[in-house]
Parts: sequence; structure tokens; C-alpha cells
Amino acid sequence: MEELRDRAAALDAADPLAAFRDRFLPSDDVVAYFDGNSLGRPPRATAERLAAFVTEEWGGRLIRGWDDGWVELPATVGDEVASIVLGAAPGQTVVADSTSVNLFKVLHAACDLRPDRDEIVVDTTNFPTDRYLVEGVAAQRGMRVRWLEPDLVEHVTTDNLAEVLGERTAVVSLSHVDYRSAAILDVAGITEQVHAAGGLVVWDLCHSAGVLPISLDSDDVDFAVGCTYKYLDAGPGAPAFLYVAARHLADVSQPIPGWWSAVDLFAMADTYTAAPDIRRMLSGTPNVMGIVAAREGVRLVGEAGIDAIRAKSVALTDFLLELVDRLDVTVLSPRDSARRGSHVTIQVPDAGDAAKRLGERGVIPDVRRPDLLRLGLSPLSTSFTEVHDGWDILADVLAH
Amino acid sequence: MEELRDRAAALDAADPLAAFRDRFLPSDDVVAYFDGNSLGRPPRATAERLAAFVTEEWGGRLIRGWDDGWVELPATVGDEVASIVLGAAPGQTVVADSTSVNLFKVLHAACDLRPDRDEIVVDTTNFPTDRYLVEGVAAQRGMRVRWLEPDLVEHVTTDNLAEVLGERTAVVSLSHVDYRSAAILDVAGITEQVHAAGGLVVWDLCHSAGVLPISLDSDDVDFAVGCTYKYLDAGPGAPAFLYVAARHLADVSQPIPGWWSAVDLFAMADTYTAAPDIRRMLSGTPNVMGIVAAREGVRLVGEAGIDAIRAKSVALTDFLLELVDRLDVTVLSPRDSARRGSHVTIQVPDAGDAAKRLGERGVIPDVRRPDLLRLGLSPLSTSFTEVHDGWDILADVLAH
Repeated sequence: MEELRDRAAALDAADPLAAFRDRFLPSDDVVAYFDGNSLGRPPRATAERLAAFVTEEWGGRLIRGWDDGWVELPATVGDEVASIVLGAAPGQTVVADSTSVNLFKVLHAACDLRPDRDEIVVDTTNFPTDRYLVEGVAAQRGMRVRWLEPDLVEHVTTDNLAEVLGERTAVVSLSHVDYRSAAILDVAGITEQVHAAGGLVVWDLCHSAGVLPISLDSDDVDFAVGCTYKYLDAGPGAPAFLYVAARHLADVSQPIPGWWSAVDLFAMADTYTAAPDIRRMLSGTPNVMGIVAAREGVRLVGEAGIDAIRAKSVALTDFLLELVDRLDVTVLSPRDSARRGSHVTIQVPDAGDAAKRLGERGVIPDVRRPDLLRLGLSPLSTSFTEVHDGWDILADVLAH
Repeated sequence: MEELRDRAAALDAADPLAAFRDRFLPSDDVVAYFDGNSLGRPPRATAERLAAFVTEEWGGRLIRGWDDGWVELPATVGDEVASIVLGAAPGQTVVADSTSVNLFKVLHAACDLRPDRDEIVVDTTNFPTDRYLVEGVAAQRGMRVRWLEPDLVEHVTTDNLAEVLGERTAVVSLSHVDYRSAAILDVAGITEQVHAAGGLVVWDLCHSAGVLPISLDSDDVDFAVGCTYKYLDAGPGAPAFLYVAARHLADVSQPIPGWWSAVDLFAMADTYTAAPDIRRMLSGTPNVMGIVAAREGVRLVGEAGIDAIRAKSVALTDFLLELVDRLDVTVLSPRDSARRGSHVTIQVPDAGDAAKRLGERGVIPDVRRPDLLRLGLSPLSTSFTEVHDGWDILADVLAH
């Protein structure tokens, strides 16, 4: 309807972040990209930076690049992620490895700090890799998995978590934003509750990093991990981040003690001594090009400001909800924007078929078979008009 | 001396691989790059491919890239590495994670296959990350490290290995080429010997991949790992490879069971079931851009042919040895080219100082403090004249 499209255009005209759309490379055949929550678009700066990196740094400096700052890059960019994305002071974050490998490390690290306890709590709705790794780590340590089975929308709360916490709780492993419903969990409240029970928390921030304000330090979080390829626009499979609260650093160990976690990387020492700082969480040679790419996306978020990003994210998902409510679909995401991340999930009869037909018309949603379409709205690269136009085609596809 | 430089020029003129030098990006201030054994130069094709990848695939296809082949990329490029570099049939190799993470996985995997044995054999001269990880994995499993202390040049042989092998030997972890002396170990002979003792082998191929013929299948190797950023020219910290012999695939497990090692990546299943094939060795989302870069370097090796590369490598190191023998330095590398990889290591009074002064004059060696200079000669990107000119400056630096 013309009136709705005018509304969208007016929202775009008033959008303080509108200019950021031009900071990303275009995709010619795409009318609406509703999957920035799975893979962010490439920033133009990243393309330029990578080309310069290959020619001038890798090619020009060759091995000397390590002395020019590559060695420090996991921690340097980690500090930028900490400051811009995580609400964390320097010295607690590195960028390296994948989210899964990092989760594996911090789960073991957290359990090591609670040797007299034998349960890891995780929810059945958590992302598969989180559940699989919790099960794997528990089995490796002879511990037990304590499953929490929350409703997808209400999700894990201090109320239902209270039922499984106890003297056996070593670690609680949760995601800040549910990957299906977009429900936001209460990081501060849950962390405080777990600490009161004597346990430690591991937060997976994949679906919140770069799109929701995060305050790891003031929320007293113990460990966190997350990816950079969603709202941080770092590219497919770019290196992930790993956070350890400063108070744990002196005592923490990790299960993959490679040369990059040793106190002196190039000493080639006879015996392993862990670095005294956050570098002790590294393992092998970090992917420099991937970290260089991640840095550009992180800086875009910093330039826009996380509060402005969150405000636009809420406005985008509010607008989309208003639109999808005109269709005959069930909305799985929380209605309360304060409890909703940056995607809206709807239930349709056959998500695979709908996605195929949407794709043929330039609308790209995220599919979770059999019946979920996630419509992810990355605030820096998505306009209200794009939301409208994608919805318009969605309405047509679902009607036929 | 003019005569030597003429010799170098004649060798270059007769070099069938000479044209490959132009396939790499230049470094303007570098007279001689003697560290291709630590970080290979960027192929021009890689620079072009990466730029196209960011614009057309990541930017143009966005999330659809996963359906276009990104999902299969760890195994697809793994098969190319297998065929071109490892002497291995398809289905046994993936490219993902770092060498350290991959080594961690295969060490656990190998130990799992020998549950009744409690010793891991490793040599004291092995690369630090290998030693640290063997110690870490042994501690995690309540196993014992059996140290072998070989001479750096003679190195691990079936003779000295016989002294530590026995009924308790679960796994033997060795490097194909010693990172300091360049001594080549006998993969076939040692593997056969370890098998005869009932153990399994894990080979680290970092210093041989792309520069020495390797025959993992016919040598009956069980597990292997290695990096792509040395002679495969994939860029700093590019993803590593991991090989598991087909005969072990059905039984092998690994310690970091993420969603990428599950049988159906996108099923988001309630319970973890490992993929039936080599994908079971993956963990988190692989770094697509890194694998794309690695592929170009691997293809260059394939185009040149590993036998031609090895022949040039021997000719280059033979020539360099002839030159350094004119100086007052101790050579640490084997004299017999059949037992020498693609670098020549010399002992000098103060390697750090020598490297600094060499660097000021455009010669880049690899330094292992306190007293070793490794002169690594990457056959595809190094000329005989470059070897001569670098040596000429080295002679001058050491004389003053």
C-alpha cells in the first residue's frame, strides 16, 4: 500500500543512521536483505582495507608484519571490540579462532574454576553448537548437563533458572539473544543469580554483539564469546571474540595450550608457561586477515554508536511487526521491544518453499526448517523502505 | 664475486620455474627474502581472488554464498590440498582452524583409538606448540609424555625411536621437517615402525607442505596437520589443514564437537550426531576468506608440480650452502640434500643483531634467538640471484 511505503520513506528521511547504508557494498539483485543477523554485508572500508593489507602489509612487509603489530592484533582488536561492543575495559578480550573453539575453551576454563561442582546448566533452546559443546565438555570432565527447558519467547528467566541452580552448579551457559525467537535474556540479573548460587556464567553474544548495548564489566560477567560475522560485518567465518573477566585472568587455564598462549611467543621455550594476561586464551597463529576485516566492521559500529544502532533496530523491528501483523502468520518473537533483539521470526507453513519463492524475487530471509522464517534487520545496512518492500513481496508470496 | 653472481644468473636462466616469480606481488625494499619458510609471499592471484570474493561473493551473494559452495569449502579445498600437497585421496582432509587447534583435535582423536595405552611420544626438538599440546593432552587424559631427545641434525630415526616405543605407546607425534635444522624425518619408515609397535602417528607437516613430496596414503599415515601460510602462500594465520586416514574415519571422534562437525549442519538437531565423514573433524564456522586465499596458493603449487618445486628447492639450498661455506659460520642443516628441507640454518654469534643489520640492507632472514639464522628459500618465489645477493650482504654484515 502506498501509504505504508510513504511511512517507510518518512522513517528513512528521519533516520540519523541512514547514511551508513552507503558504507556497504551493494548486491544488485537484492530487493530486501533480511539475513544480516546471519551474515552482515561487506563494508566498503573492509574491501579497501583488505586490498591494502594484501599488497602493502603482507606483500610489502612480509614476515616483518608480525613486528609491525600483527602479533598484538588479537588483543588490540580485542580491546576495540571490548570498548565498542562489549562494555569492557582493555585486557580482557581477544579476537581469534571460531566461536565454537572459544566456547570450548571458556567452558573448560570456567569448570576449572569450580572444581568441586559437577553440573553445567544449559537450555534446550540454545544454539546447537552451544548445546553440543556443553555436552562434550561435560562428558570430557565427568560432569553432568543440567537441562533447562524454557518457552522460546519467555525464555530463561531468574524464575525458571532458580529451579535448576544449586550447590552442584559449576557453570551456566546461555545466549544473550535467542537465535530463533530473538528473546533477550537478562544478563545482569541472571549473572548475579548464578554468582549467588556459587556458579560462573558463560554468555554467547553471537546474536547481540554490535546490535544491543552490552555491559560485561558492570554486569559482572565471567566469560563471554561471540562471532563477528553477523552485526559486526566481518565476513563469513571471520574470527570470533573471547572475553575473560580480569578477576579470573590470573587463575584461568584453557585446554588448548599452543605457542600463542605461552608467556613468550618467540622464546620457543622447553616448557610451557602460560602468558600472564588474556593472551593465555589464544592457541595457534591467529588469522591476521580475518582480524583486519573484523576491525573495520567493529569500527563502523563504533562510529555509529551502539545506542543509535539499538534505537534504529527497535524502530525497524517495530515497523516490521506492524507490517507482518497484517498477514496471516504467527509471530514468534517477543512483542515487547525491550525483550526483542534485531530479528523477527514468523511461522509459515513451509519455510523452505517460501524462502525459495522470496529469493526468486530478491528477498532474502533466514530459514529455520521446517516452518520458521527469521527476518533479520541489520540497522546500519537496512532501510525502512527495504523492510517495506521485502514485506510487500512476502505478503504476495504467502498469499499465493 | 662476479663469478658467483654469473653462476646464479645462469642457474636462473635454466630454471624451469623462473616464471613463477612474477606470479607473486613484489616487496619494493627487499633485496632477498629468506623467510618464505615462515610466511610465503602473496600470489597475485590471491589478491585478485580476494577482491572478487569480497565484492561478488560476500557482497553480491550474501548469505546465499553458503549454498553456492562455502559450506563444502573446508572439504573441497581439503581435497585439493590432499591431491596436490599430501599425496592423499579425497575425503580425508579439511582446511579450517589453526594448526594448533587441529593438532589438539587429532592428538585426542588418536589417543581415543588406543584406549589401553598411556604414553604419547614426542621429541624435545619438536616445534613448541607441538610439545605444549602433547603435554596438555597427556595431562588432560592422565597419560604420560615419553620424551625423545634426538640430535638436531640426525634427528628422530627408527634407531633412536626404537628405544622409547613399547606396549604403552599410544601415539607418536613428530614433525616431518625440523623447524630449526631442516632435517627430514623418514615418514614411511617411522610410521611403519610405530604401527608395528601398535601405536598411531601424528605428523606435523608445517615445514614440508608444498615444498617436499608427501605420500600420506601410501605411507600409511594415521593423522596429519599443517599450516598453509608457509610454502602454500596463503597469508598470515590462514586456516590450516587436517588429515585423517580413511580407515579411521568411522571410529574417530574429536574433542570440540561444534555444529560444523554434526551430521546435518542446518538441522539444528536436539542431540549431537557426528558427521559420517571427514567433516566430523570440523568445529565452528570455517573462515571462508582464509580458505579462499589458501586455495590460490595450493593451486600455484599444483601448477608448478611438487617434483619440480623439490628439485629447485634442493638446487637453491645446495647453492646457498656452497656460498655460506665461504663464510666463518657453522651450518646446522644436514649436508645431504636428501635429508634437508628448504631452509639452511646457520649459527652466528648474535642472531638478533645480525638480522637487524641484514634487515637494514633489505635482506630478511628468520631469527631463532640467541644464535640461529634460518635462511628459508621458497622455490616458487626465490631466484638464485636473490640467494647470491642476500648472501653477499650477509657476508659483509658478518665480516663487520
